[in-house]
Amino acid sequence: MSTPTKDVDLALRRLSDLGERRIVKDVLEPRYRSVSGFGDDCAPFGSEHVITTDSCSRALVASLGMDDLVHTGWLLATMNLSDLAAAGAEPDALVVNYTLPRETPVSNLVRIMDGVDACAATHGTRVVGGDLGEGSELRLCATAVGHCPPRLTPAGSVATRLSRRGAGHSDRLLLIGSPGYLWAAALLYHGYAEIGEDRETVYAKAREPVAQLKAGRMLAEHGLARAATDVSDGLFASVRNLCHTNALGAIVSRGIQLDEVLMEVCRQAEVEPFGLGQIWGDWSLVVAVAEEDAAAALELLDDAKLPARDIGFLTQATTQLWLTDDDGQFESWNGVDQERFSDTSWRGDGIEARLRQLRARTRN
Amino acid sequence: MSTPTKDVDLALRRLSDLGERRIVKDVLEPRYRSVSGFGDDCAPFGSEHVITTDSCSRALVASLGMDDLVHTGWLLATMNLSDLAAAGAEPDALVVNYTLPRETPVSNLVRIMDGVDACAATHGTRVVGGDLGEGSELRLCATAVGHCPPRLTPAGSVATRLSRRGAGHSDRLLLIGSPGYLWAAALLYHGYAEIGEDRETVYAKAREPVAQLKAGRMLAEHGLARAATDVSDGLFASVRNLCHTNALGAIVSRGIQLDEVLMEVCRQAEVEPFGLGQIWGDWSLVVAVAEEDAAAALELLDDAKLPARDIGFLTQATTQLWLTDDDGQFESWNGVDQERFSDTSWRGDGIEARLRQLRARTRN
Repeated sequence: MSTPTKDVDLALRRLSDLGERRIVKDVLEPRYRSVSGFGDDCAPFGSEHVITTDSCSRALVASLGMDDLVHTGWLLATMNLSDLAAAGAEPDALVVNYTLPRETPVSNLVRIMDGVDACAATHGTRVVGGDLGEGSELRLCATAVGHCPPRLTPAGSVATRLSRRGAGHSDRLLLIGSPGYLWAAALLYHGYAEIGEDRETVYAKAREPVAQLKAGRMLAEHGLARAATDVSDGLFASVRNLCHTNALGAIVSRGIQLDEVLMEVCRQAEVEPFGLGQIWGDWSLVVAVAEEDAAAALELLDDAKLPARDIGFLTQATTQLWLTDDDGQFESWNGVDQERFSDTSWRGDGIEARLRQLRARTRN
Repeated sequence: MSTPTKDVDLALRRLSDLGERRIVKDVLEPRYRSVSGFGDDCAPFGSEHVITTDSCSRALVASLGMDDLVHTGWLLATMNLSDLAAAGAEPDALVVNYTLPRETPVSNLVRIMDGVDACAATHGTRVVGGDLGEGSELRLCATAVGHCPPRLTPAGSVATRLSRRGAGHSDRLLLIGSPGYLWAAALLYHGYAEIGEDRETVYAKAREPVAQLKAGRMLAEHGLARAATDVSDGLFASVRNLCHTNALGAIVSRGIQLDEVLMEVCRQAEVEPFGLGQIWGDWSLVVAVAEEDAAAALELLDDAKLPARDIGFLTQATTQLWLTDDDGQFESWNGVDQERFSDTSWRGDGIEARLRQLRARTRN
């Protein structure tokens, strides 16, 4: 039996030779491309259910003087629930799978569970099962399941599940959530800004990122979202994925408005607000909305007190990503990115170097 | 705020001070006991769905000269599907969560997926999603979802989901599956027996344990099973759990009949067949069946060519576990057991010592 040359070449490589994107493209996609929803945040099963799984080692906030594992537990639940948000799903349950060293203090396990349980409760769901295993290092996995009930209309039944597919050119891109808090906390912790008593507000939001379940569900139910994805690896990676999936390009404005307290951190730290806005860690949602529906979608979210902003639109220029500024100038978007099994993979180290990068990107 | 003394004591301990059973009893149960199905192989969600998660590091067969990771992938899928079998569920989907060192050859990832996918396909299901993360050691998690549709009877709708709950005294215990192959392979590999060309048959079955999904589903649909659990940690642990959950005892026969090729291995290796029958690794199912239904259940399974045997019955003597032999002699059952985060936890080491134990247990 002969093996195609490409496979032999691949098989001899190591995961770090490829990086996550090539692993997905060259190893996973050929095998799993026929799976419904391949590449999406969630996979559908049954008639209306969706499932997702995500893992984390330790929360970034642990290196910001907040090393209580409750934050890692909260993050683990948020990561998984955020994928459900991108499907417009209602959460049904979480299961967890913790790998822990034998010598782990029981109190650490308790704090992880405190975080997961508190986050799940915030969204009206809970952990229904799990597995504890021994390993040489802490490794936390979870799986979330949810459902997207079909919507009944006079014309019949309409699927409400959102995915990365379905966006069209000239769709507006809405960024839903409160981006910037995690890395603003890092800037504060490392002394690049000083904002007095607001500091605790920023830390609190950095510790407890919120999955945008309510927004995803609401836009899906109203038939206002054409495609959605969450911001796991930064805004750039999310928009690039949306564009790649739909063979579109995007023009995004770098004049992003962050919450006022973050604008102040940016001023002091000499970081462009877009730098904080495009980085990962706050679990926002990017939703493509038909141009004519954008105002209605923003109004709906505003009525529900869900923070959202229009950040740009999709174009026909396949996979070309552009930034535009207030003066109408365009430039190619080479965004902040992280990729597992690559040198950009975040493993909890080198925060200061990242902060310097963030500041260096600020245009003069 | 005062904390109860017991919690303080616990919090100061390490996971290995407690072991898995005390972790479950003292840490998890107080927190999660109100979760429907706590302690079961699967947790229910939605109206008819169930979910389970399990992890493994490396298959035991890897230390038997069969170090292809395809076997670990197969095992990972089997472990999870076996939990669905214990719920009498039909599998809907698997998701996987792999932690891999950066330097892992791509070919290893491919072999893991080959194993998971092949096992899933055998049971008519597939992997629909997953997550790859970096870590210092190989760690494979999976989650399986399935459904147990309610059965319509003239009297109405009857739940078909099985759990550990629901057994009664005098129920017969059926052991479904083909126990003994994994450790028979270990005996062969280490030269304790020599069976010529049948050796490959034993190895093949050891490499590809079968989740008893069909049997679980069939007994549930026919209303013949009152309670069920799979044999993850050995027959002793499974029967103990069934007894504990239902406040019952059990009398199990040590005169177990294994497949003929295994009986031959036992003769040569001087191991009592019950020694192979009660050990873990073959993913059998233990089902409690009302005394009057036992013959019908065995006939149903036999017609479907599913291997099953009556191994004993449940008693009113709460959590007392007894063994009986062909001469009608009784003795307390202190079975082979493994417990994570304890000294009996299996971490892929010391097979020879385990084999010596197995042989030492043989009565003269």
